[in-house]
Amino acid sequence: MITLYHCHNARSFRCLWALEALELPYQLNMMPFPPRVECPDYLRENPLGTIPLLVDGDTRMTESSGIVHYLVSRYGPDSSLALPTDHPEYGAWINWLYFGEATLTFPQTLVLRYTQLEPEERRLPRVAEDYTRWFLSRLKGVERALSDRDWLCAGRFTAADISVAYALLLAQRLDLSQYFPPRVSAYWQRAQQEPAYLRAQRSQDRHQPSSAAVSPLM
Amino acid sequence: MITLYHCHNARSFRCLWALEALELPYQLNMMPFPPRVECPDYLRENPLGTIPLLVDGDTRMTESSGIVHYLVSRYGPDSSLALPTDHPEYGAWINWLYFGEATLTFPQTLVLRYTQLEPEERRLPRVAEDYTRWFLSRLKGVERALSDRDWLCAGRFTAADISVAYALLLAQRLDLSQYFPPRVSAYWQRAQQEPAYLRAQRSQDRHQPSSAAVSPLM
Repeated sequence: MITLYHCHNARSFRCLWALEALELPYQLNMMPFPPRVECPDYLRENPLGTIPLLVDGDTRMTESSGIVHYLVSRYGPDSSLALPTDHPEYGAWINWLYFGEATLTFPQTLVLRYTQLEPEERRLPRVAEDYTRWFLSRLKGVERALSDRDWLCAGRFTAADISVAYALLLAQRLDLSQYFPPRVSAYWQRAQQEPAYLRAQRSQDRHQPSSAAVSPLM
Repeated sequence: MITLYHCHNARSFRCLWALEALELPYQLNMMPFPPRVECPDYLRENPLGTIPLLVDGDTRMTESSGIVHYLVSRYGPDSSLALPTDHPEYGAWINWLYFGEATLTFPQTLVLRYTQLEPEERRLPRVAEDYTRWFLSRLKGVERALSDRDWLCAGRFTAADISVAYALLLAQRLDLSQYFPPRVSAYWQRAQQEPAYLRAQRSQDRHQPSSAAVSPLM
């Protein structure tokens, strides 16, 4: 049985989305945020204290887009989520998987940190502005890619969309979705209707009573 | 023929290292740094203006660790650099590929930006300190992983080491290697003796006269 340690709508949502899309059985451990502070025992499971942690037998993983990549490669290589290595868009597919996290998500964590997570006296609006600009400039690459398609690769919803669309979920929570260019905006609307996205949202709601504190997003 | 757009010792060094390790033929286009300023024509090739860009037929990729992943999966699935999906360490291998970039490299770009690249009046030593601490805390995960091994996965040098060791090259340039814990330090020494690393270093030197401005690292 695969176990996922998850905070509500944190990066680990990518993994939950992939688990639902692949229809794999899993155990969901909802964590308070930030887990390294709220739940020190978690450090025994993941000494980095970060979310996600995926445990699958002896395999332990902490990179959200990497986990999506792993799950589809190991458990769904012939599923619609994966592209085979000889597919003409295989390189683009891998690129989006990495781009969603390294290029589109990390800059937003700067915005989150220096406008919300740090104590007021340590906040730095200028860094938030610098990395909002950075994020929006990279988002133009998504806008260009969507000029002739509804999903990023192979004419269908794939793991690449899970990686990139999560960055848009985070952006919405940071009030950056008002700046989405038009095709990105329409894409984000589509992603929120994707059946496994809806199942993953319901799954995390079911596991965490709505009265519980909703965690921020790192 | 594969074409790589590269700046000296920038993230694109990962791709060069992988090309050398796989013994693939390639064309190396050395770029001045930052290319979007120094070489506006480059925006026609890569509208993001970022390095690397890898062009392989119709495939165009911009994520350095993603390119390493692509090259070994498409051109070296049976090489010593790759792990098959049923290998017990396959998940760890993917995790390190992502971790090297998203978790170990991005924080260092904050240090670089706010101590060197920004004009003096826009520098923010506190952000550099915050992300130096962040980087070093994540590096402990590498130290733990190396407790019983010389390389990260499968008892041999793999693509995972290319992704992670590049982050150590960047750290050295930022004077952070003095803080490496002992096993990370020994690992970084080993990586610099790896035969394909040495070939990749010679390749970039050959393509760019040593009198040329050595670029920073983003």
